[in-house]
This record gives sequence, C-alpha cells and structure tokens, in this order.
Amino acid sequence: MVNLHPHNYDQMHILSPKKPSESTIVMTELVLPNDSNLLGNLMGGRLLYWMDIASALAAGKHANAQVVTASVDNVSFQNPIKLGSVITIKAKPTRAFRTSIEIHMEVWVENHVTKRSFKSNEAFYTFVALNEVGIPIEVPVLEPESIDEIRLFDGALRRRQLRLILAGKMKPNEATELKALFIPD
Amino acid sequence: MVNLHPHNYDQMHILSPKKPSESTIVMTELVLPNDSNLLGNLMGGRLLYWMDIASALAAGKHANAQVVTASVDNVSFQNPIKLGSVITIKAKPTRAFRTSIEIHMEVWVENHVTKRSFKSNEAFYTFVALNEVGIPIEVPVLEPESIDEIRLFDGALRRRQLRLILAGKMKPNEATELKALFIPD
Amino acid sequence: MVNLHPHNYDQMHILSPKKPSESTIVMTELVLPNDSNLLGNLMGGRLLYWMDIASALAAGKHANAQVVTASVDNVSFQNPIKLGSVITIKAKPTRAFRTSIEIHMEVWVENHVTKRSFKSNEAFYTFVALNEVGIPIEVPVLEPESIDEIRLFDGALRRRQLRLILAGKMKPNEATELKALFIPD
Amino acid sequence: MVNLHPHNYDQMHILSPKKPSESTIVMTELVLPNDSNLLGNLMGGRLLYWMDIASALAAGKHANAQVVTASVDNVSFQNPIKLGSVITIKAKPTRAFRTSIEIHMEVWVENHVTKRSFKSNEAFYTFVALNEVGIPIEVPVLEPESIDEIRLFDGALRRRQLRLILAGKMKPNEATELKALFIPD
Amino acid sequence: MVNLHPHNYDQMHILSPKKPSESTIVMTELVLPNDSNLLGNLMGGRLLYWMDIASALAAGKHANAQVVTASVDNVSFQNPIKLGSVITIKAKPTRAFRTSIEIHMEVWVENHVTKRSFKSNEAFYTFVALNEVGIPIEVPVLEPESIDEIRLFDGALRRRQLRLILAGKMKPNEATELKALFIPD
Amino acid sequence: MVNLHPHNYDQMHILSPKKPSESTIVMTELVLPNDSNLLGNLMGGRLLYWMDIASALAAGKHANAQVVTASVDNVSFQNPIKLGSVITIKAKPTRAFRTSIEIHMEVWVENHVTKRSFKSNEAFYTFVALNEVGIPIEVPVLEPESIDEIRLFDGALRRRQLRLILAGKMKPNEATELKALFIPD
Repeated sequence: MVNLHPHNYDQMHILSPKKPSESTIVMTELVLPNDSNLLGNLMGGRLLYWMDIASALAAGKHANAQVVTASVDNVSFQNPIKLGSVITIKAKPTRAFRTSIEIHMEVWVENHVTKRSFKSNEAFYTFVALNEVGIPIEVPVLEPESIDEIRLFDGALRRRQLRLILAGKMKPNEATELKALFIPD
Repeated sequence: MVNLHPHNYDQMHILSPKKPSESTIVMTELVLPNDSNLLGNLMGGRLLYWMDIASALAAGKHANAQVVTASVDNVSFQNPIKLGSVITIKAKPTRAFRTSIEIHMEVWVENHVTKRSFKSNEAFYTFVALNEVGIPIEVPVLEPESIDEIRLFDGALRRRQLRLILAGKMKPNEATELKALFIPD
Repeated sequence: MVNLHPHNYDQMHILSPKKPSESTIVMTELVLPNDSNLLGNLMGGRLLYWMDIASALAAGKHANAQVVTASVDNVSFQNPIKLGSVITIKAKPTRAFRTSIEIHMEVWVENHVTKRSFKSNEAFYTFVALNEVGIPIEVPVLEPESIDEIRLFDGALRRRQLRLILAGKMKPNEATELKALFIPD
Repeated sequence: MVNLHPHNYDQMHILSPKKPSESTIVMTELVLPNDSNLLGNLMGGRLLYWMDIASALAAGKHANAQVVTASVDNVSFQNPIKLGSVITIKAKPTRAFRTSIEIHMEVWVENHVTKRSFKSNEAFYTFVALNEVGIPIEVPVLEPESIDEIRLFDGALRRRQLRLILAGKMKPNEATELKALFIPD
Repeated sequence: MVNLHPHNYDQMHILSPKKPSESTIVMTELVLPNDSNLLGNLMGGRLLYWMDIASALAAGKHANAQVVTASVDNVSFQNPIKLGSVITIKAKPTRAFRTSIEIHMEVWVENHVTKRSFKSNEAFYTFVALNEVGIPIEVPVLEPESIDEIRLFDGALRRRQLRLILAGKMKPNEATELKALFIPD
Repeated sequence: MVNLHPHNYDQMHILSPKKPSESTIVMTELVLPNDSNLLGNLMGGRLLYWMDIASALAAGKHANAQVVTASVDNVSFQNPIKLGSVITIKAKPTRAFRTSIEIHMEVWVENHVTKRSFKSNEAFYTFVALNEVGIPIEVPVLEPESIDEIRLFDGALRRRQLRLILAGKMKPNEATELKALFIPD
C-alpha cells in the first residue's frame, strides 16, 4: 500500500497538479451531550472521528475519488474541550504520493459561554485513493504555494518514514530523513 | 500533564499495585451502514472512536476513576474492513505513570459471510486519571506478569519519549531510549 | 419575542457593532446511509437539521451567547442530493434586531463520483439570544460591508414582516415593506 | 418540478381519490439529551427533522410511493421545549397537486414533570412522489371531508403561490390568490 | 419492586382513576439503513428499543411521572420487516398495580413499495413510576372500558405471576391464576 | 419457523458440532447521556438493543451465517443502571435447534465512581440462521461441556415450549416439559 519514493513527475502523470488551497475543507461541529464524558469533556475518540471525516473530505477532493484512511499520526490532547463548545477543523493536503495523500489539520475550539478560544490540536492523517472497485489509483501531484505549505510538504517524507518504521515496514537505520533528527552532525 | 519519570515506588503510593489482567476490556462492535463509506468499508474514524471507548474503559478500570484521552499513537490501517464485519477490540494496560496509563489494543475482525478473520490493527492510547473536579490524580502502579506484558511495559518509556518529541515537549537528542533505535552500536 | 423596529443605535447599545465576516461559519457534512431514503437521496429533514446547527453557530458567534431558533423561512429543495455527497453550508449574519439575528445560508453540494457541484439551497433562519437563565438579551448591531451583505441587510425588514404575517402577529395590510412587492406603482 | 394548476379531474386520473384521514400519521418522540442545547431546550433543527419524517410518511402513504421533500414553509418556534418532553406530531395531507402533496402538521408538547401541555407549532411541508428510478409520478386526488380539511385545502393554492414567489419561479404580481391578501378591496 | 396484590381501591388512592384511552400513545418510525442488518431486515433489538420508548411514554402519561422499565414479556418476531418500512406502535395501559403499570403494544408494519401491511408483534412491557429522587410512587387506578381492554385487564394477574416465576420471585405452585392453564379441570 | 424436536444427530448433519465456548461474545458499552432518562438511568430499551446485538453476534458466530431475532424471553430489570456505568454483556449459545439457536446472556454493570459492580440481568434471545436470500438454513449442533452449559442446554426445551405457548403455537396441556413445573408429582 505504500511506496517510499515520491512522484516521479516526468513520466507518470497526466493528471494536472493541484494546489493545497483547492482542496481545503473547513468543518464545524457542536459538542453535544453524547460526545462528552461524565465530567462534561469532549471524548478524544469523537474528535478523532470528526478529524477523519474532515481530512477524508479534503483528500477525496484532491484525488477526485473515494479514499480510505491509511494512517493517523500521533495526536495529543492538551486541554479539555467542554460540552457546548464549537469545534472548527481546517484540513489541507500537504503532499501527494503516488496513490496516497497526507492531510494536515488544525483543530480550533470556541466556547460562547466561557468566551475562550484556542488551538486544541494539530494532526496528520494519510489516505489512499481508490477506484469504484476498491483498487488504489494515482492522485494528482500537490504543488505547495505558501511558506507554511512548503514547510509541511518538506516534512512529509520524514513523517512517512516514521509511519513506515512504526508499522514495521522500514528499519530505523534506513530512515535517512528521520535519523538526522537524532544525530547531531 | 506529563512527567518523564515513572513511579518512584518507595514514597509515593498507598494505592495497591494492579495487574494488566485485572483491567482488560473486550469490546465487540458490528459494522453498520452508517459506519462505512460508499465502497462499503468501515471508516477509519469510526474505528478510532471505538478504540477510544474501549481503551478509556480499561484505563478507567485500572485507575478506578474518570479518565481523559491524553494521546493516541500512530495507527495504521492495512486491510479494508467490510460492512457487516464484527470488530473485537482487546484493550489492556501496559504501564502506569504517575497520573497516566498507557493502554495497548489489538483489533480483530471477523466476517461471517466471507468467513475471513484477521488482526486488523494494534495501537496505543494514553489516558490521564481525573478526580470529580477534573484534577489529575495518582493511579495504581501496574505490575506486568506475562512475557508479552513485560515486553509492552519495557517499551512504554520509548513510546513516551516519542510522544513527547512529537508534541514538542522534548528535544530528540534528549530521548535516550529512543535514540538507541537509530544509532547502531 | 419579536420587535418590529430595528435597533435604535443612539441610545441602546454599549455592545460594539460587528461585521458579518466576523461570525461566518462554514460547515461540511458527508451524506451517510442513515441520512438518505430508499432512493439514496438525502432526506430534506436532515439538511434542515444541519442548517439549523450551522446557522445557530453563526448566530451564537455574533451574539457571544446561547441562541434558540425563532423561525425558519421557506426552504425549497430543487435537486436530489445523493448518498456520499459532500455538503458545505456557509452561514452568515445578515441583520441583528434587538435580541434576534437573521442568518443567511448557502448550501453547496459536491459529489466526488459524479464530479458534479452545484448550489442546492439558500435559506434564512432567525435566532434569539438568551442569557444563562433563558431570558432574551440584546445582541450587537450588525454592520454589513460588501454589496451582497448590504442587499441582504436591506431585505431583512421585508422578510421579518412576512414572518410576522405568517405567524399571525401582523396584519398583511400593515406590512408596508412587503406590500410594495405586490402592488405595482 | 411544480405545476400551478391543480388536478384536472376529468382526464388525468385512474388513481382513486383518497381522504385526508386515510393518510394521517401520528408520531411521538421523546426529547433526549442530544436533541437539546446547553440550556436544556430542544434544538429547532431536530424538530424540523422529525417533522420531515412525519410528513414524508403521510405523503408516502397518500401517494403509495417514495417521496422527496420539495419545500418547507415558514416555521416559527414560540416556546422553548424542555429536555424530557414528549413531542406528538400529527401530519395530514391537505391537497394533492399533479405529482406533489402538501402536508399540514400540528406539533404538541407534553411535559410529565411540569405537567404543561401546549401546541408548539404548525407547519406545511410539500413532497413530490417518485417511482423506483426517481422520476416524478402522479398521485391520487385528495378529497377533504371536514370543515378544517376544506379550509386547509382551499388555502393550499395561496401557499403554493407564495412558495413559487419565494423560490423565484413566479412574479409577485402574477400571484392572484396571494395578492388579494395585501390589497383591501 | 413488586407487590402481588392489585390495588385495594378502598383505602389507598386519592388519585383519580384513569381510562386506557387517556394514555394511549401512537409512535411511527421509519426503518433506516442503520436499523437493519446485511439482509436489509430490521434488527429485533431496534424494535425492542422503539417499543420501550412508546410504552414508557404511555406509562408516564398514565402515572404523570417518570417511569423506568421493570420487565419485558416474551416477544416473538414472525416476519422480517424490510428497510424502508413504516412501523406504527400503539401502546395502551392494561392494568395499574400499586406503583407499576403494564402496557400492551401492537406493532404494525407498512411498506409503500411492496404495498404490504401486517401486524408484526404484540407485547407487554411493565414500568414502575418514580418521583424526582427515584423512589417508587403510587399510580392512578386504571379502569378499562371496552371489551378488549377488560380482557387485557383480566389477563394481567396471570402475566404478573408468570413474570414473578420467571424472575425467581414466586414458586410455580403458588401461581394460582397461571396453574389453571396447565391443568385441565 | 419453529420445530419442536431437537436435532436428530444421525442423519441430518454434515456440519461439525460446536462448543459454546467457540461462539462466546463479550461486548462492553458505556452508558452515554442519550441512553438514559431524566433521572440519569439507562433506559431499558437501550439495554435490550445492546443485548440483541451481542446475542446476534454469538448466534451468527455459531451458525457462520446471517441471523435474525426470532424471540426474546421475559427480561426483568431489578436495579437502576446509572449514566456513566460500564455494561458488559456475555453472550453464549445454550442449544441449537434445526435452524435456530438459543443464546443466554449475563449483563454486568460497573460504575467507576460509585465503585459498585453487580449482575444486572440474565436473558435468553433466540435467532434463526438465514442464507444470502433470507431462507432459514441448518446450523451446527451445539455440544455443551461445563456443568452450567449442560444445565442451560437441558432447560432449553422447557423455555422453547413456553415461547410456543406464549406465541399461541402450542396448547399449554401439550407442553410436557413445562407442565411438570406446575404439577407436583
């Protein structure tokens, strides 16, 4: 399902490249009673579910195809999110590989009653594009524009290596991009 | 919210230690239409939601307290799970830190129609125990028994360092446990 | 619950005026099986529900308070929306009355499989702002900026008269603004 | 999708006419936590959703076919409906056009705890009948019996003109029925 | 929670007696995809859930209080109910004991597409009335009127004995009413 | 749909017999706000729904086929189950008839906050196995092993007679197994 090498632009594509801004999704959700635990805090799993929908929509828009979740990177939850809060998830593609797309998300929280607003999470989900019978298909190249988009594009290979190591599909000492982090020159 | 050093057994605890088997949770779910996409595959986000409930129940049982999700480690989805499949999630504590508990899960999938059965995922979720007003509280020490439980207990520090680095709370070159992976002796 | 005369700006407000763009909400939803009928079309009631959430979030943001739905204007459904479509609802305040806010929405539909994208609906929902014990409270004045926002602001009195007539709270021949529509000069 | 002229009884129908009482639907719902906002009041959108189901069932019964929502007339919400209340929706056809049916609803609220009972709303929803492949089909003529049913039948043309004007499909000065309301003789 | 002897009318009640028809509930539900299994049949558990809501509403109306389910009598499912069917549940009190009420239900199924309509189930659920702090409270006496209501009222003691035997709270040979069924005179 | 005589082992089966332990299901659910009434107690109907899913999974595992609920035996609810409790349902086949399977369930409740844990219910649900077009098919013989399993296996005929009587398919005086209960020798 994975392929370590990013697109070879020259030979492979007839699909036109796309920009991150063409496939950005904004999703807003209200934290209802069934989304929260006895302390009145949003359950982490509900947020992971909403993030999956939001990022799948962004990936599907980029691919112009059905997509399935291939992996979720480490997500940490710093602050409790209270019942009645408004969650805004901004999902944007960061890099397209051959048949997969990495999506970056920012989760923002607003609470009309406490009037607090803060960035709750950031996360990366990866999706594979499929045709009507469920076979992986190629996706358009992603061409980042802004400085932030370029920074996220550049970090994508390193995150991909980490995913492959964590899934047992790559040996740590082969992860050239990632290794650099741990070994000062 | 986090504390790098595991329990100092001598001074800190009056709570009796517990074994992983005392707080194991088995959860079974049926994949219904609303859980699946147009291709009839379980959406990743729904599985992440169920895994959060199952592991929160295991963590709550160990802590004998309310818990909130602190982090979800990298999860990868290898095989599509079809509509009508039966999901079994086995959640077991692997290590307790001062106020937090790491839970390991195995996700098994059975399909009565195709008669296939396979292990779909493994994952680690971490929870913080809270008292009635939402303040973190100490949890019992976890004492692993089986060889598998000891292996998971031993790996917990390394996974903790990875979480802290990914959350920007630790510098990669301070992560002694983790660094060893990338540097051949 | 209603008051025919819009804000008297001079004496009434210590709340700072707000612009429509400060309280715009974008909500994205995926049409799942339980949202659709046997023909695989989104049920109208589900869309009305999502529109209520989206517009309530915009009204709550403008009012910085809890809001309740006061009325829904006529909504018509022209084109069937298929299972698997992505719904994007853009909700924006058009005019604030003393304790109520009118919200305008556009509903856009995208279908990755058929690759069609179209504007499905427009609608107006009105909300009343409430304090913690459920008593209506004043909301900030809304100051439109763009030409479209001004046009929607200007039409708000006419729509308000129509709502009052339809709710039996105003006689048709008192509805000066509305009457003009039916009587050519 | 709409046709201004009601049934031409002579030539068009082989379907037997039906009475309103043959297709009346009573639906009862309990207001659960997820249906209500932070103040413990039923969210307007949830009620609109239930009303859509109830009226679609009445329309489907009259048409003996699948139906889709064509429009929702102005609905106003006067009194808050508390969590734990019992909602009773009575839906009854008022008039059949060629392929569409208008349904009138009364919404009643009972609260066992406060012992209050009141009529919360009235509304009109319109549906189009479809065959198995989604093409509009003719529906039986509706023959009102009681005085109330005749009054609702008679008002249906006026409401239809208002819907067409509001949907931009008719010019106000062509709406003969409706115009009479605004112009004293 | 149970009391074998029905009301002693003379001394116990200041609550006015009520008739079955005063507390009849009609509930209508549409079978949606998530309510059905892979064969497109309504899942039995979903029907049991709807029946619980409908009968709880009838019991709550009779008691004018909160109620909790005390028992469900044997329910059998004869015919499959297809996705898209319309379920109508008629719930009516049959007999009131001191703090509990037995409710009888008929479940009717209509299918617009196949045009079949049939009675799917009958069942009895029993409820206990509770005050605001959860203590059982007395309920009004039920006075049956029609022949059917009297027949159901009369059978209530026999069903009550069966429930008590099945719950291990009565010995079979003490169940005078029930025993008669098995012993020909 | 029913057949009073259990398997004739000699001639009928090519399916290998199975043990109860091969088809045991453990399901864990958390009581969320929408599952509970105004007093914060789990609604009986929600538990009946969960029990249906759990037992259907056990029956489907034994039959290796789709199953539909045929009947639910009398269920009584003794103790209120509070919001936030953890429900564990253990479902195990007790006896297979020709095309049907009886499942026994124990429902356990744990509450982290009150630290109470108790057995809430026991119940029997019966299922019929179906092939892909909905026709009942034979299921493997069940061979009980433990003393408890044998006791439940032996009681199955008596419960089956009770079900048939209650469904009006058998006359009480033909129910040899059941009659013995009411007539002391």
